[in-house]
Amino acid sequence: MKIEYESIGIIHSPFKSPKGMPIQPAGAEGITGTVEVFEEFAEGLKDLDGFSHVILIYHFHRSSGFDLHVAPFMDRSQRGIFATRAPRRPNPIGLSVVNLIKIEGAILHVRNIDILDGTPLLDIKPYVPDFDYHQVTHFGWLEKVPGRVRRQKSDGRFK
Amino acid sequence: MKIEYESIGIIHSPFKSPKGMPIQPAGAEGITGTVEVFEEFAEGLKDLDGFSHVILIYHFHRSSGFDLHVAPFMDRSQRGIFATRAPRRPNPIGLSVVNLIKIEGAILHVRNIDILDGTPLLDIKPYVPDFDYHQVTHFGWLEKVPGRVRRQKSDGRFK
Repeated sequence: MKIEYESIGIIHSPFKSPKGMPIQPAGAEGITGTVEVFEEFAEGLKDLDGFSHVILIYHFHRSSGFDLHVAPFMDRSQRGIFATRAPRRPNPIGLSVVNLIKIEGAILHVRNIDILDGTPLLDIKPYVPDFDYHQVTHFGWLEKVPGRVRRQKSDGRFK
Repeated sequence: MKIEYESIGIIHSPFKSPKGMPIQPAGAEGITGTVEVFEEFAEGLKDLDGFSHVILIYHFHRSSGFDLHVAPFMDRSQRGIFATRAPRRPNPIGLSVVNLIKIEGAILHVRNIDILDGTPLLDIKPYVPDFDYHQVTHFGWLEKVPGRVRRQKSDGRFK
């Protein structure tokens, strides 16, 4: 089944190339960027300024093709693609939670952004503790890379 | 910019119609379902069984059209669509975090599912504390509906 979406905005960040960018917001602490929502969707932003965190869903536009097994940034073993957050996925959909600083018109100013400049935005959702906090008991191969997740930067292999 | 995806599987749940289903996993506690990943993508599930929680990204296939302002389930005021998790969105992309019980072949058995039966799956990502836990300071209009988020069920208005 084919599904067609259309970008609703563009994400702007200091990261001009996949190489050297942080792999997740936790590794992008303090980095600011903006999310430009196209005018035709601006009315949908009403009330969003009440949330300290928002979920951005976007298209990994620099990603092409995929492998079902990948060697993630933080690990030397081959892992199943769905057990990683790598961008080269069957459907290259990205998801990041960012800290919302303020909204000016149709521009969101955000902090802790880990997204490539120019990325097409697909959706924005409010981050809500009742929906999005979960008591994790185990988190697989990532348990074995303690403290590394936050610091690791991309080496460009997933562009 | 048009973006085309293809479903990588189908989600099975006890919810056969939008009416009466919980609006988020927090309201679906204990409800079990399965995620059927198409055989061609099954190899991508390697290592996922190490995670207690996974993020499902899917297409709200019963949703058609959208309004930029909506009256959410938990509220009588009109809110901007991006300040809600309602399914009738410019791009009808759904996101739920579920508890992974076990994987058998290409079938994930999951708990706390809030997704309509037959929903096309777009992506699976591991839920990782470093990436997905965030210290929220405020969460907008949803702060005013304490305790209600978990209990509220859909009245079918978003089908």
